[in-house]
Amino acid sequence: MRIYNFSAGPSMLPLPVLEQAAREMTDYNGSGMSVMEMSHRSPVYEAIINQTESDFRTLLGVPENYKVLFLQGGATTQFSAVPLNLMKTGKADYIVSGSFSGKAAKEAEKYGQVTVLASSKADNFTYVPYVDKFSPDADYVHICYNNTIYGTTFHYVPKTGDIPLVADMSSYIMSQPVNVKDFGVIYAGAQKNMAPAGLTVVIVREDLLGFARPETPVMLDWKIQADNGSMYNTPPAYTIYVAGLVYKWLLGLGGLEEMKKINERKAKVLYDYLDQSKLFKPTAKKENRSLMNVCFVTGDPDLDKKFCSEAAANGFVNIKGHRSVGGMRASIYNAMPEEGVKALVEFMDKFERNNKQ
Amino acid sequence: MRIYNFSAGPSMLPLPVLEQAAREMTDYNGSGMSVMEMSHRSPVYEAIINQTESDFRTLLGVPENYKVLFLQGGATTQFSAVPLNLMKTGKADYIVSGSFSGKAAKEAEKYGQVTVLASSKADNFTYVPYVDKFSPDADYVHICYNNTIYGTTFHYVPKTGDIPLVADMSSYIMSQPVNVKDFGVIYAGAQKNMAPAGLTVVIVREDLLGFARPETPVMLDWKIQADNGSMYNTPPAYTIYVAGLVYKWLLGLGGLEEMKKINERKAKVLYDYLDQSKLFKPTAKKENRSLMNVCFVTGDPDLDKKFCSEAAANGFVNIKGHRSVGGMRASIYNAMPEEGVKALVEFMDKFERNNKQ
Repeated sequence: MRIYNFSAGPSMLPLPVLEQAAREMTDYNGSGMSVMEMSHRSPVYEAIINQTESDFRTLLGVPENYKVLFLQGGATTQFSAVPLNLMKTGKADYIVSGSFSGKAAKEAEKYGQVTVLASSKADNFTYVPYVDKFSPDADYVHICYNNTIYGTTFHYVPKTGDIPLVADMSSYIMSQPVNVKDFGVIYAGAQKNMAPAGLTVVIVREDLLGFARPETPVMLDWKIQADNGSMYNTPPAYTIYVAGLVYKWLLGLGGLEEMKKINERKAKVLYDYLDQSKLFKPTAKKENRSLMNVCFVTGDPDLDKKFCSEAAANGFVNIKGHRSVGGMRASIYNAMPEEGVKALVEFMDKFERNNKQ
Repeated sequence: MRIYNFSAGPSMLPLPVLEQAAREMTDYNGSGMSVMEMSHRSPVYEAIINQTESDFRTLLGVPENYKVLFLQGGATTQFSAVPLNLMKTGKADYIVSGSFSGKAAKEAEKYGQVTVLASSKADNFTYVPYVDKFSPDADYVHICYNNTIYGTTFHYVPKTGDIPLVADMSSYIMSQPVNVKDFGVIYAGAQKNMAPAGLTVVIVREDLLGFARPETPVMLDWKIQADNGSMYNTPPAYTIYVAGLVYKWLLGLGGLEEMKKINERKAKVLYDYLDQSKLFKPTAKKENRSLMNVCFVTGDPDLDKKFCSEAAANGFVNIKGHRSVGGMRASIYNAMPEEGVKALVEFMDKFERNNKQ
């Protein structure tokens, strides 16, 4: 029996994707081998990675003057790669809207001068700061588009003009359309909406390639990865294959416009319930509410704990908030079915009636 | 039908491992989810990674004063991590026995002064140089233990005394026992003898941790990874799980002593044939012959091409040598069955009779 897994990542994958991966495990398409076993330089695997990139580009409408890289190391590796590749003059602006954007800014300080333009830390990251002034000499402006831990999302695209805008979209990518042209670089760990953990996708505008600092580890140099079609060394080939299955699934649903509608419906079910509940309170400010991560509390840590425990016993797992903030978090990524969200709300309503304050 | 895949990596995995992965794909052990979907901080996944590390330690006899790290980025990322973590005074010795050890030395030059003690490049890397003198002030000595491209293996462990010996064992690890105590650091990409691509294992002696240079990207800092149990960010969780299945398979066979006997038998079948063949010639010097990668040529590039093409048509695939050297290479890692090697030799013998010079 499959259960409803509200994990913030790694998280649910579409069941048809898992079933296809299982079917093809010992013999992919008559090749006599698993995708796990394929030489990454064999024609059969090259067809897989090329199709995966092509479907990724179609889904997000990636313009031709952007490279798509399939890398390893997670978004945290890109926290280093961003300054290493982009800090031409050694200055960068960061907007800090959560723990991960704070970590990204701290990492960049190793390589240059970082200006934190705004931070919502004093308000426990319950909102995303609005910023419309940038350092004129910044090499780039960095944001984290969806803050997984706090359940907030940017409600605007910072207008940085000629300064490249760099966005960590790990828990946002593929949840709805993105205007890639608004960004110089987009990067995302795959383990929320795209694949198992172990794959990081970087979308980078071509004119930003070729400026890596001398201390850049070769594998973190985007230009080297771009020049080698993400195969400077062996790529995470199987994880890329699973991502490809997920992209096919998304295309089959009708693409990201359709996915957005489904995600809005799912989030509405949960937020509508939270807005009228007398027990559970959503924690993110309304205009910044994430469609992907819905955070809420009862206000009583013991009751939170009781809720998480009873939820798990009823088949709603990984609903505990991040260890740094507590409370609850229901991550409802693309692969979480609408029935899962509805069933969760029914369970919460029942819990509320049984635990009148 | 499964075919014999002689790829140098990614390469064959044991069929029972693939079958178990397929069976558990949509519901691992009654958890209601795939290992791909598990939060890496959930008890069910923690049990998987802990068992995997424990089995890895058992197989290799890793002493308690060594940490085992499950990382991303391949051995090439470790080409940077090694100098970044170990170049305390900024000097290191390298023995260059192939293309990858050359690349490792070149990468280290970004961070300090590299002395190439010896290189077999002038002889097309057909042997491994013997070295017994080291720079007294070197922070470490680096070697690549098995040279995948050239089919050579170290036939001795350099006696570096107090200087830590660092070895890339990507195409050697798990093929036979290793005396870990002889090394300060061992690292290996998993995609030859352990798992699909996307996992790199680092074994590091504890006293070598804590000296990372200031420019070290956080994900490349071994101490940070060790302090966080390889979970500073989301690890390549599914690939680690498959590695765990491979370790169980190895333990079931009787461990690395037993694996070594099997690998010696397999290699003997192939080398014995090559040593008496009038058509095919092995390229590596006898004392450095690899048990894992067996390289050979006919001396006629057109005939090599004909052989590779006919071999593939007969179910022996990926037998072409590395694009930088040509010829043929049969990689016969742990998961290649003995029947596969015997069948290949029969095919080679038939080809030889049909193509008398």
